[in-house]
Amino acid sequence: MGDDGAEGQTASHKPLRLFVEPDLAAGGIVGLTREHAHYLQRVMRRAVGDAVLLFNGRDGEWEARIEGLGRGWCSAALTRQTRAQRAEPDLWLVFAPIKRARVDFLAEKATELGVSALWPMFTRRTAVSRINAERLRANAVEAAEQCERLNVPEVFAPAPLTEVVAEWPRQRRIMLCDETGGGVPVLDAVAEAETGAPHAIVTGPEGGFDSRELDAICDLPFVTRVSLGPRVLRADTAALAALACFQAGAGDWRDKRATPAP
Amino acid sequence: MGDDGAEGQTASHKPLRLFVEPDLAAGGIVGLTREHAHYLQRVMRRAVGDAVLLFNGRDGEWEARIEGLGRGWCSAALTRQTRAQRAEPDLWLVFAPIKRARVDFLAEKATELGVSALWPMFTRRTAVSRINAERLRANAVEAAEQCERLNVPEVFAPAPLTEVVAEWPRQRRIMLCDETGGGVPVLDAVAEAETGAPHAIVTGPEGGFDSRELDAICDLPFVTRVSLGPRVLRADTAALAALACFQAGAGDWRDKRATPAP
Repeated sequence: MGDDGAEGQTASHKPLRLFVEPDLAAGGIVGLTREHAHYLQRVMRRAVGDAVLLFNGRDGEWEARIEGLGRGWCSAALTRQTRAQRAEPDLWLVFAPIKRARVDFLAEKATELGVSALWPMFTRRTAVSRINAERLRANAVEAAEQCERLNVPEVFAPAPLTEVVAEWPRQRRIMLCDETGGGVPVLDAVAEAETGAPHAIVTGPEGGFDSRELDAICDLPFVTRVSLGPRVLRADTAALAALACFQAGAGDWRDKRATPAP
Repeated sequence: MGDDGAEGQTASHKPLRLFVEPDLAAGGIVGLTREHAHYLQRVMRRAVGDAVLLFNGRDGEWEARIEGLGRGWCSAALTRQTRAQRAEPDLWLVFAPIKRARVDFLAEKATELGVSALWPMFTRRTAVSRINAERLRANAVEAAEQCERLNVPEVFAPAPLTEVVAEWPRQRRIMLCDETGGGVPVLDAVAEAETGAPHAIVTGPEGGFDSRELDAICDLPFVTRVSLGPRVLRADTAALAALACFQAGAGDWRDKRATPAP
């Protein structure tokens, strides 16, 4: 949504996609939020009778017709399910917060690249002292609407590294982006990854983890330190590169697109 | 350089890295630009005697000591070569221009990911009508300084697709990011790539190539249409994902880092 969201959706008569909360089922009528109503009417100039696509992360994607549209309200009648629900690969991104513009970018890209959850983690060298989880969520929703996902990544409450380590679900495998240059080449790690098993990509702050933090993470079961080549990548670049390599080799990038692009 | 560039370089006493034009050789003294002088003195608070690292894309990386520093001028005496010159993989990124903030990010990320050249290409559905090649170059320089590259990607003059196709060097292989979802999985294409051969990643505009444009590109020799999975990626995401997969599988990501990170 918003200006930038509109950019990718202006192409001809392609229906807008909106993430909504209510259940979606045959014959249903859905009341949209004030924000969606404003977006449809004022920003995208849609009118009664126009089609939209709705998804809620549970019931697949549905085509709906705008039935009523006024200042701050909109109702849409569900016409047919266009896609059945499917899960994204169970892949978390755990990252040390960075500057706001870079976090926005990271949330968008990680959503497009198919993460199932985003978890901001504060480390000793994290220069940014707070992160707006709602903004993170809003960026993820917008990217999910754009990229034709059927759900939105979860956004976990930001936590210090010690807490992340203490609460870590023991069966979830970690690929740790190792900026000291010592890890195994990322595609070797990806080749060893068990398809379908829960995974997480973990990236540090711009200054890197300190050695005690690295030790704490590496003491968890199933941790692989991965290398992303000879150049020093920024934290956001490292996260995106590792996500792309994971999805290409062990995620769902061998699956066909559900709806061909226009 | 600049505010954002400073962020990654504040870590303790790590010397600043600057891309310069002059030759670098033992015993040499280099005059820096007005911009570099301002950056060193005013932004980063460096003084006479401090070390900097210089590279020019030809002579490797050199340590130098600031010998004189005033309003708008700086001279530095070369002390020793810290790294020998090495080439990045011969990998171009040919992309349809997108919004400015996204082009800035793309130039930065593509540089970190090790492209050898950036070539903006106008297509029929390119919504952006001009692109600032100097700004592209400035972003690439800044990213090269940050990520410890020994050169800066070339920036080719923006050209329409027809011209890009007409001028294409026939031996350079193309991986075309195919947003219609029809290509081969990207890592299959990467596995077939001849290591060391010249390659290019080519990405389209937000609305995709039109069919005649696709045909024109696919008529070139050595074109592989690659798929980047079931989600619809933005043009910039597609470019970064394809670059990461290429470098991880067929580029230099199995090489060790020259200088370990701090």
